[in-house]
Amino acid sequence: MIDINQELRTFEDEKFHDECGVVGVYEPGNKQNARSVYFGLHSLQHRGQESAGIAANLGGKIQYYKEMGLVQEIFNDEIIERLQGDIAIGHVRYSTAGESHASNAMPLVVYHKGGALALAHNGNLVNARILREEMQDNGVIFQTSIDSEVIAALIARHLKNSTIEEAITQTLQVVKGAYALVITSANKLIGVRDPNGIRPLCIGKTDKGFVLSSESCIFSLLGARMLRDVEPGEMVVIENNEIKSFKYAKGSRRASCAFEYVYFSRPDSDIDTRNVYTARNLCGKILAKEHPVEGDIVISVPDSGTVAAIGYAKESGIPYGEGFIKNRYVGRTFIQPDQRMRELSVRLKLNVLKENVAGKRVIMIDDSIVRGTTSAKIVRMLKEAGAKEVHVRVASPPVTDPCFFGIDTPDKSKLIAATHTIEEIRKGMGADSLGYLSVEGMLEAIGLGDDKVCTACFTGDYPMELPESGMEFED
Amino acid sequence: MIDINQELRTFEDEKFHDECGVVGVYEPGNKQNARSVYFGLHSLQHRGQESAGIAANLGGKIQYYKEMGLVQEIFNDEIIERLQGDIAIGHVRYSTAGESHASNAMPLVVYHKGGALALAHNGNLVNARILREEMQDNGVIFQTSIDSEVIAALIARHLKNSTIEEAITQTLQVVKGAYALVITSANKLIGVRDPNGIRPLCIGKTDKGFVLSSESCIFSLLGARMLRDVEPGEMVVIENNEIKSFKYAKGSRRASCAFEYVYFSRPDSDIDTRNVYTARNLCGKILAKEHPVEGDIVISVPDSGTVAAIGYAKESGIPYGEGFIKNRYVGRTFIQPDQRMRELSVRLKLNVLKENVAGKRVIMIDDSIVRGTTSAKIVRMLKEAGAKEVHVRVASPPVTDPCFFGIDTPDKSKLIAATHTIEEIRKGMGADSLGYLSVEGMLEAIGLGDDKVCTACFTGDYPMELPESGMEFED
Amino acid sequence: MIDINQELRTFEDEKFHDECGVVGVYEPGNKQNARSVYFGLHSLQHRGQESAGIAANLGGKIQYYKEMGLVQEIFNDEIIERLQGDIAIGHVRYSTAGESHASNAMPLVVYHKGGALALAHNGNLVNARILREEMQDNGVIFQTSIDSEVIAALIARHLKNSTIEEAITQTLQVVKGAYALVITSANKLIGVRDPNGIRPLCIGKTDKGFVLSSESCIFSLLGARMLRDVEPGEMVVIENNEIKSFKYAKGSRRASCAFEYVYFSRPDSDIDTRNVYTARNLCGKILAKEHPVEGDIVISVPDSGTVAAIGYAKESGIPYGEGFIKNRYVGRTFIQPDQRMRELSVRLKLNVLKENVAGKRVIMIDDSIVRGTTSAKIVRMLKEAGAKEVHVRVASPPVTDPCFFGIDTPDKSKLIAATHTIEEIRKGMGADSLGYLSVEGMLEAIGLGDDKVCTACFTGDYPMELPESGMEFED
Amino acid sequence: MIDINQELRTFEDEKFHDECGVVGVYEPGNKQNARSVYFGLHSLQHRGQESAGIAANLGGKIQYYKEMGLVQEIFNDEIIERLQGDIAIGHVRYSTAGESHASNAMPLVVYHKGGALALAHNGNLVNARILREEMQDNGVIFQTSIDSEVIAALIARHLKNSTIEEAITQTLQVVKGAYALVITSANKLIGVRDPNGIRPLCIGKTDKGFVLSSESCIFSLLGARMLRDVEPGEMVVIENNEIKSFKYAKGSRRASCAFEYVYFSRPDSDIDTRNVYTARNLCGKILAKEHPVEGDIVISVPDSGTVAAIGYAKESGIPYGEGFIKNRYVGRTFIQPDQRMRELSVRLKLNVLKENVAGKRVIMIDDSIVRGTTSAKIVRMLKEAGAKEVHVRVASPPVTDPCFFGIDTPDKSKLIAATHTIEEIRKGMGADSLGYLSVEGMLEAIGLGDDKVCTACFTGDYPMELPESGMEFED
Repeated sequence: MIDINQELRTFEDEKFHDECGVVGVYEPGNKQNARSVYFGLHSLQHRGQESAGIAANLGGKIQYYKEMGLVQEIFNDEIIERLQGDIAIGHVRYSTAGESHASNAMPLVVYHKGGALALAHNGNLVNARILREEMQDNGVIFQTSIDSEVIAALIARHLKNSTIEEAITQTLQVVKGAYALVITSANKLIGVRDPNGIRPLCIGKTDKGFVLSSESCIFSLLGARMLRDVEPGEMVVIENNEIKSFKYAKGSRRASCAFEYVYFSRPDSDIDTRNVYTARNLCGKILAKEHPVEGDIVISVPDSGTVAAIGYAKESGIPYGEGFIKNRYVGRTFIQPDQRMRELSVRLKLNVLKENVAGKRVIMIDDSIVRGTTSAKIVRMLKEAGAKEVHVRVASPPVTDPCFFGIDTPDKSKLIAATHTIEEIRKGMGADSLGYLSVEGMLEAIGLGDDKVCTACFTGDYPMELPESGMEFED
Repeated sequence: MIDINQELRTFEDEKFHDECGVVGVYEPGNKQNARSVYFGLHSLQHRGQESAGIAANLGGKIQYYKEMGLVQEIFNDEIIERLQGDIAIGHVRYSTAGESHASNAMPLVVYHKGGALALAHNGNLVNARILREEMQDNGVIFQTSIDSEVIAALIARHLKNSTIEEAITQTLQVVKGAYALVITSANKLIGVRDPNGIRPLCIGKTDKGFVLSSESCIFSLLGARMLRDVEPGEMVVIENNEIKSFKYAKGSRRASCAFEYVYFSRPDSDIDTRNVYTARNLCGKILAKEHPVEGDIVISVPDSGTVAAIGYAKESGIPYGEGFIKNRYVGRTFIQPDQRMRELSVRLKLNVLKENVAGKRVIMIDDSIVRGTTSAKIVRMLKEAGAKEVHVRVASPPVTDPCFFGIDTPDKSKLIAATHTIEEIRKGMGADSLGYLSVEGMLEAIGLGDDKVCTACFTGDYPMELPESGMEFED
Repeated sequence: MIDINQELRTFEDEKFHDECGVVGVYEPGNKQNARSVYFGLHSLQHRGQESAGIAANLGGKIQYYKEMGLVQEIFNDEIIERLQGDIAIGHVRYSTAGESHASNAMPLVVYHKGGALALAHNGNLVNARILREEMQDNGVIFQTSIDSEVIAALIARHLKNSTIEEAITQTLQVVKGAYALVITSANKLIGVRDPNGIRPLCIGKTDKGFVLSSESCIFSLLGARMLRDVEPGEMVVIENNEIKSFKYAKGSRRASCAFEYVYFSRPDSDIDTRNVYTARNLCGKILAKEHPVEGDIVISVPDSGTVAAIGYAKESGIPYGEGFIKNRYVGRTFIQPDQRMRELSVRLKLNVLKENVAGKRVIMIDDSIVRGTTSAKIVRMLKEAGAKEVHVRVASPPVTDPCFFGIDTPDKSKLIAATHTIEEIRKGMGADSLGYLSVEGMLEAIGLGDDKVCTACFTGDYPMELPESGMEFED
Repeated sequence: MIDINQELRTFEDEKFHDECGVVGVYEPGNKQNARSVYFGLHSLQHRGQESAGIAANLGGKIQYYKEMGLVQEIFNDEIIERLQGDIAIGHVRYSTAGESHASNAMPLVVYHKGGALALAHNGNLVNARILREEMQDNGVIFQTSIDSEVIAALIARHLKNSTIEEAITQTLQVVKGAYALVITSANKLIGVRDPNGIRPLCIGKTDKGFVLSSESCIFSLLGARMLRDVEPGEMVVIENNEIKSFKYAKGSRRASCAFEYVYFSRPDSDIDTRNVYTARNLCGKILAKEHPVEGDIVISVPDSGTVAAIGYAKESGIPYGEGFIKNRYVGRTFIQPDQRMRELSVRLKLNVLKENVAGKRVIMIDDSIVRGTTSAKIVRMLKEAGAKEVHVRVASPPVTDPCFFGIDTPDKSKLIAATHTIEEIRKGMGADSLGYLSVEGMLEAIGLGDDKVCTACFTGDYPMELPESGMEFED
């Protein structure tokens, strides 16, 4: 019998996964900022579906609640009511295989010399293991396998003789990697972004306070307006209803994650002043210029390919249409399928819209291809439905290298573009033609400047030195 | 404080709701047809999210399981395993206010003279109350408020001296209304459609058996191919791996529900030989002809307006784009919002994509407008995001009359088009212009023939006589 | 590997099981009588742990809630709040194998000609099948396998031309068996007991109303005082805050169930004017007279043997002590034991108190022995703990015949005393001696008069004629 | 309206509560020792009902699972299956108010220099706060408020240059208080008891390995036999299927907790070679000598007073009987009672058995009285039921001082015997006479020797110096 969960996993493995989303809300006098954080996390749910948590800070006393599950499954009004605080922070986390412990959920709340501190982290350190071992050599214990505990332990060590701002600054001299941090302690809400600004973090302004968020798409819901992004190497400290800015690192190049534009972020977010929809749409347009093909209809692999597909259609003049219908109710299923149900992993989620593809030359836009296993199934479904030709166009460059900066990434050996030529990939998936967006095209679409974007997973050009072992994974 | 669930309810009330989806699978020798029914229901989840159930028939002995919740929440492998049978039927049900009893879930399983019978019903009888009272006068008791119990009681009464086919036929001489029935008893799987064929029901063929389903979109997942629709007034009896057809009613006009094309059914389903996507897309195109307007972008209220919007854009030559981003993780939330969060019901689900609307003349396509309360909020959001003009186009005619045939419908007094002129509606929603598709346009798009479609909710022209009291609701 | 649940089942199978407990509360003006019913059911939980339900009657409109599980697991304040009514009735049900459907839970609520009716039933009909078939022949359908549905269907049939009191009376002319019924309809609370009074039902008086209950032990909790038992063949109708009594049957002999005194009822209940503790304690005393033996300590198989053991000790002059410690936290476990864990089913619940038995001649009192499987294990545990002698004394007569009146009973072939001599049983369980209370002794202890007690399971002398087939079980 | 949970809390507050139970199982080759730990915890459930956890150690790699709830609610076969290890340890925890975090559940698993370590702790440190602050001054962070984290952090610090045995020994030079520890790391199972041996810990032997447990009552279930108690100040290290003993502390006086004999432990456990039943029974006998009174019946407040009551009855020659029936199904209820239900907290659990007390001079044995609030209600219930006289006898001395060694204890101001004379207490509870067991009588009953028992809560004579602040509670 087919292992359906393995199958479904395969389907999800086809995409990269972000590991986290973070939110912080500061509104003195409003004791129920946890409520705003809740709705913020709800709108960041696409950044992580494994676990979620909220910590509320009332005059330095921190209450928290975190659990496995979706935001709306975890919290109820009674729990939110208990989370009283002038400041609240929250976190959603993606499920990386084998590490699904409730104890790895965030925010991480620790009790140090001066009181309590809550920390939410999006990203990944490249020297976490070595830092951890160093501290363990000095008798420090760890209770989780998350990087955030390393950061918290370092901050605590420095708090001995320092203010929290100093302790964080000293800690950030040592840790390397990607991080967007939201921290609360005493009467402060603090936001930090790594020196390269790999992971996003932006600041919103409400009538009576401030919001920090991985993405700006939550602002209108919370009644906030975009103030600005936190800068690479910047720490912002919100206290007494003011923001103070500290530059704790200098000279690094900005390297905003390209995949936030290509796939992760919601199209209604602005990342480092560039709108995601615009960038994604431009990817489609430039893709049309780089890989034109004659066809009757432009379709997308929903939902993530749709924005680029619209762009491709516009640029090419070939009409956009829906080629697949997506089941909106797909969650976890524990029912094993009948043996006759082939490719169930795909079919449970997508069904071909025959009317639009039968007898047609179909141009299918996907946002990215990681392993390539699902693409073959999708192309086969289109052909079975009568498509005369299937031309696959990918609105991002071939993925050739793993990410060490907060994205759940397979081994290089499992990245199809790392081990196969474009022609081999095309053949494997049974497409009539295959075209990827060029790195240059993608950079043009993002529009931040060629040297301001991290394209490591497409080029192997990492924005910082990696430890010798290359990849560093938590065990 | 705002009552969030009331708010969310409002949002959902903006659309009509279908009340059910039904599935039946017949494969002698395969004892686990419940498994196929499960996956079928999973793909019909859009037809009802309140409760679901499966009954399996093994040589006349019927096991069943039904519960409140989504299909994938209710069943697990152990339950499916217990549902052994050569025949299995299933049902999903929509939550109509105040009637959320587990005991109203289907299939309904009853024990009559000759054994057990399971019945799943999509539709609504218009004379259920009077039939129920008549039987109660004769000492029959009812344990639920669902029409299906009336049908089952009638069949049972006739079974005294008849075969099941005769008993059903006799029953159908008496009941009036809309019904697509899937019944199993003894070694038979039976499908019935009312004399007008208002609610859909189609037949699929697998290698070793047959599938009955409200919609054909489940067939590819189940390895089935579309055979044909059950005809109005037809009963099909599947036994000994053969289908026999009985015409139990004659002379009624076919009246396929227009709303199945406009909103209910999945675009990848064919209803009475007409593909839903094609019809919906044509609605958009004809709407563009009927209500042209100058504009910069055509957007849709996702997801249901998208197919028509693509059609409108194509016909008008104005580019299609996304105006809203929909949160894919919206389920039930029990957290009360902060008072500052205005229009949360809409904002939790939709966020304006500023880049696409700011400074533009926006043409917004909605599939239908029922109460009009949400439309005003959506238009306001667009204007706040900087839209220069908002032209609302509705891809179906004004809804002026309630449905008595299986759709959860508000009172006529709450149907905005029943009590307001188009100009009043436009003004109320703050749109710069407003245009509805004409009934003729919709009929042309559906393409079944003008007299073969039920347009009662747009015209008040019901395909059958209604009881004097007009509407008949279960209390 | 051992099937632990099979094992645990075995342990529970050692005792007879009552099938139900019923409660009704009538207090006009108090809309939350469901609250009192809840606490009443909570105190009747020992009568049934499978499912529970409450129906509340507000001016004839009946709301209900029923579920699988323990009373305190099923209900919460929100559910109770919704169950508004001047009258409320409730039911707890025991889990009989294979019939664990939520749809078999009670109260049964049906909608008949004149309105709604809720019914809770403790007992078993001996002619349910034939009545059911008769009605099915006339086209009546059934949705459950419980007798109560037969009773409700008959009442409904008679309601055509009758008052509810008449309809019930007419129904009771036809049904045969054991029943304690609590019914509510319109503004009435009705209690009925079968012509032999096999199953108990008593009436309590509160300041503002009345309580009906299977057992009087709930009265003090509800602020009620014992008024009297419902008499055999009596129907009491509570309306306008008055009780009216109807004798619907005459001439039958009273036959109160002996097992209520021996095992089922709580010791703090009075059944038909006789206190259960007193009867059970007397059983022990008379047992001591009938089967004296030299010994050092009298112990009980807790908890059900304790009252008799205290009596035995008192009468014999041999000191009472605890021989076993019972784990108070035993519920359902789903963990399979290690193979080395022998007799886990017993050991999970009981542990020998070595200090009290090692080197001693132990007299062990059990309330009853049904299959005898567990007794052997318990005797072996005592011997392993060093007991010099183990003398088993059973505070009820040998169980030789099945019950058809509401007790879950194994086949006669599985009743050890039906197929073995006392000496064989003694040998089988490895006891040094074995003595059962005589039927006469038990009747003396109960003290109702020799002909007023049903002793059928000990004597085969059933208080009414049984259908030819003998036992009638629902399939 | 009465707050039922406050009421129920009151009822539970009447007794002291132990905070934990610990188990460790070592059987090389048996990868499923978690299974044995599960059943062990199941039998130690009376020691803590808030949360439970199991950690399994497979060659140094530790997997764990812990949750809020009862043992049998938390675990299922799938979870146990995943907990593979030659060694497994487990823990049950009592719910102390306000601290009900899942993150406080045990075992605590930490990752230190040399690998992973799991630790389960029963007891309380008196210098945890100061140790915690010292470490926090050095930059150590804490993630919970449990003492165990302090112990683990200290062990980790010493592991820098030491073996695990040395690190534990060094740690135990610093921590002060009561502790029974079960630790696993590498291929070792380690048991430790504090220098006074306040909290119990004993060693069992199975065919292929060893068991450590708070109480010996679990041994027969696990197929183990009692080897011996861990001695005060002893660390036992089980490795290579051998036990090695280390005396890490010398010269302290043994001070076994008296309350383990009086109330906490199961009667079928032996604590420091003395059987609990025997001690408790002797308490009753000596109480009868110290406080004789004329009476008709000796009853107990079930279940904890029963053993002593049997002793009292034996010694006094006055017959023992049951005065109360306890509802065996009382768990958490969330239903608010009706206002008329007085003393519901008691009545939900206990009902007077009128037959045994009406018109009688009742001698009621309670094991201990802490706050005295419940006693008054119980005495009133007896009087209302017609008791002529109620003589309260308490099978332990007056509780006058709080415990700092692992028992959840109210403020001294809330200990009724700390602030009232015996006569005042008697009057307050409405008893006709009141007698407490003397400290000497209790010591005689325990029989360990007068100076080998901790009687601090009765005498204020603590077995070790306390920090100046007196009591040390986690905030």
